[in-house]
Amino acid sequence: MKKNYIFSPGPVEVPSEVLLAGARPTVHHRSADFPPIFARCQEKLRKVYVTEAPVAVLASSGTGAVEAAMVSTCSPGDTVVVYNAGKFGERWGKIGRTYGMNVLELQPGWGKPLDPALVENTLRKHPETRAVIVTHTETSTGTVSDMKGLGEVVSRTDAITIIDSVSAFAAEELRQDEWKLDMVCTGAQKALMLPPGLGFASASGKALAAMKDAKSPCFYLDLRRYFKSAEKDDTPFTPAVNLFYSLEQSLDMLLAEGMENNWARHTVLSRASRAAMTALGLTLFSERPSVVTTAVNLPDGVEWGAFNKELKSRGITIAGGQDHLKGKVFRFATLGHYNVFDVVTIVSAVEMALAASGHAFELGKGVAAAMEVLRAYHPARGWVAVEKETRALEPVAALLPS
Amino acid sequence: MKKNYIFSPGPVEVPSEVLLAGARPTVHHRSADFPPIFARCQEKLRKVYVTEAPVAVLASSGTGAVEAAMVSTCSPGDTVVVYNAGKFGERWGKIGRTYGMNVLELQPGWGKPLDPALVENTLRKHPETRAVIVTHTETSTGTVSDMKGLGEVVSRTDAITIIDSVSAFAAEELRQDEWKLDMVCTGAQKALMLPPGLGFASASGKALAAMKDAKSPCFYLDLRRYFKSAEKDDTPFTPAVNLFYSLEQSLDMLLAEGMENNWARHTVLSRASRAAMTALGLTLFSERPSVVTTAVNLPDGVEWGAFNKELKSRGITIAGGQDHLKGKVFRFATLGHYNVFDVVTIVSAVEMALAASGHAFELGKGVAAAMEVLRAYHPARGWVAVEKETRALEPVAALLPS
Repeated sequence: MKKNYIFSPGPVEVPSEVLLAGARPTVHHRSADFPPIFARCQEKLRKVYVTEAPVAVLASSGTGAVEAAMVSTCSPGDTVVVYNAGKFGERWGKIGRTYGMNVLELQPGWGKPLDPALVENTLRKHPETRAVIVTHTETSTGTVSDMKGLGEVVSRTDAITIIDSVSAFAAEELRQDEWKLDMVCTGAQKALMLPPGLGFASASGKALAAMKDAKSPCFYLDLRRYFKSAEKDDTPFTPAVNLFYSLEQSLDMLLAEGMENNWARHTVLSRASRAAMTALGLTLFSERPSVVTTAVNLPDGVEWGAFNKELKSRGITIAGGQDHLKGKVFRFATLGHYNVFDVVTIVSAVEMALAASGHAFELGKGVAAAMEVLRAYHPARGWVAVEKETRALEPVAALLPS
Repeated sequence: MKKNYIFSPGPVEVPSEVLLAGARPTVHHRSADFPPIFARCQEKLRKVYVTEAPVAVLASSGTGAVEAAMVSTCSPGDTVVVYNAGKFGERWGKIGRTYGMNVLELQPGWGKPLDPALVENTLRKHPETRAVIVTHTETSTGTVSDMKGLGEVVSRTDAITIIDSVSAFAAEELRQDEWKLDMVCTGAQKALMLPPGLGFASASGKALAAMKDAKSPCFYLDLRRYFKSAEKDDTPFTPAVNLFYSLEQSLDMLLAEGMENNWARHTVLSRASRAAMTALGLTLFSERPSVVTTAVNLPDGVEWGAFNKELKSRGITIAGGQDHLKGKVFRFATLGHYNVFDVVTIVSAVEMALAASGHAFELGKGVAAAMEVLRAYHPARGWVAVEKETRALEPVAALLPS
């Protein structure tokens, strides 16, 4: 009776309520049946985004949504600033160059968060900058950057912010309007708890204005078409109808939980994971770990392939390192529909796989450390209170409130 | 994002494959569509029963199946011997008296296993005995009785054995033919991993012969009708068609695992649970614990209502004590579609609820003890090898191989 558990930073476990919602009969998207579904999703999406801005929904991956944001607002020759400190930051630079944009890459090094002051200086030197493209949480390194600080500095210039929040959205705190962010992009198979197949991109008034004279060649990824159709609660191209059913279900679940509570839950679960890894004598890769991914340095003597095989044989999916981190880190996540006992599961799985891979430690120490954090949870109090209460157990100084 | 986990000794978690199989369109049970489904289920059921005997499938609960076995083979005035050492044993005595049978109750006390020698002596004194009704695993106390020894002694007499294997079936080792058992009854919502609604009763040649002159009043529960219809791959009354779809799926899963492997898995998982409870300083209720239910004495100072509330608030369902054990024990199970990480989950949940209820112990000790047993598991080796390998970690002397 094998059971499979997915602890990758996307795709994630899809709740059965969401799967069942997607199994309803497909309506014709050009009939009167579809616009009310679109409208309800739009309204609920904005609540999750904490924004008044419209949100385009594409049948695409998360990368499709970020590319759409870039090409719909920037032209060949435009200066764009890209934060590249991992696999995904690297990708946005490549896309900019593909369209002939003048890409300025900020490269603090993998695992380093973006310093808003660095962006501020860059924009001072390059006042012609059209857009600043930043990855909210870099999945490849488990690092979170300061979106509020970024919004603060970019909003004072003519540039717009394009946030790749693909892995962070609905897990890390994000308030588009209050934090003065222009475009926030995400995908389906992360904390939105959906099967893959939808891309999302919001646009502030400043972003919509930038779209007016943008000249990058695009058609399917042209967000102007999406925002125009959205005025009639419709999409320019065939929408992924059944994923909209699932989307509405997942948005209802997120709003029932409440975003503050949701963000705090992700914080506590990742804190418990960090506490566990630290208790096992392991070190974290990132200087500023996100709630999205716990990236852990593989200890000496533990070979990634053998370690991962031990996990896989027990039905557990996690992620390894990418590019030069291959074989050096392992990464796991409790992103979306995860709770206390999921952390207990992944930590005990990591312990058993470490033990089977020859790492010496006291079996159970990691789970005990996680439980010390998790025991504080009680639904009557909610996650926000638990988050405050467990700060003293946070093993990463950078994450403690200043 | 609350998640619910069921660790009761039935109903149990139903795998999504089984649920989805049951969601297929309902065929007409009096059309040519149904008999092939019936025939395939019958063939697979016999493999799980390890028998050549036919197995009646009723739209009923497990109690319905045991009552059907009793009334189809015994008449008013017949002597029946009933092992009563818990809630369910008590019930079979009540049913016997309801039909005017002469019920001889063997009452070793709750939590005590049945001694086959006691049955042997009773049958010597009462050679007129028509049937011996024994609960394989008494769910109310977490106790298993020796079915092989029972078959040995009863098969030498004119009496038949009627085994209430409702909670044990497909979890505890059972070999109907080899162990010379006559009727084995079970229900859907235990280790068969189904939603409730099906009852099962097999019948050996000796049992079928006993049915010929049995005169208890019965119609729906008259198994003779079921065995007659079964000759044409049919049922005498409307079958629960969609549960047959689910049944075939669950039987396929059980046979893919293999019964030896399945029994060993249940043994190891329950061994890990017992090791965990013992490591927490708790004691087990039963003298001979079954793999079906871990019944634990509530420690001093921990009140069942408060303890259970802590578990429930974390989405965990277990069972309390019944009748005079109310408030004195708690019971949990990993019965059916459960694996290594389910044990980790229920043990960590019990620890957190104990801690929240004021019990003093070192958090994590139970999980660590469970992991010491569970770490031996590797699918490449299979559960049978792991069962042998972890015998040294068995905390209950009665369960060690003699």
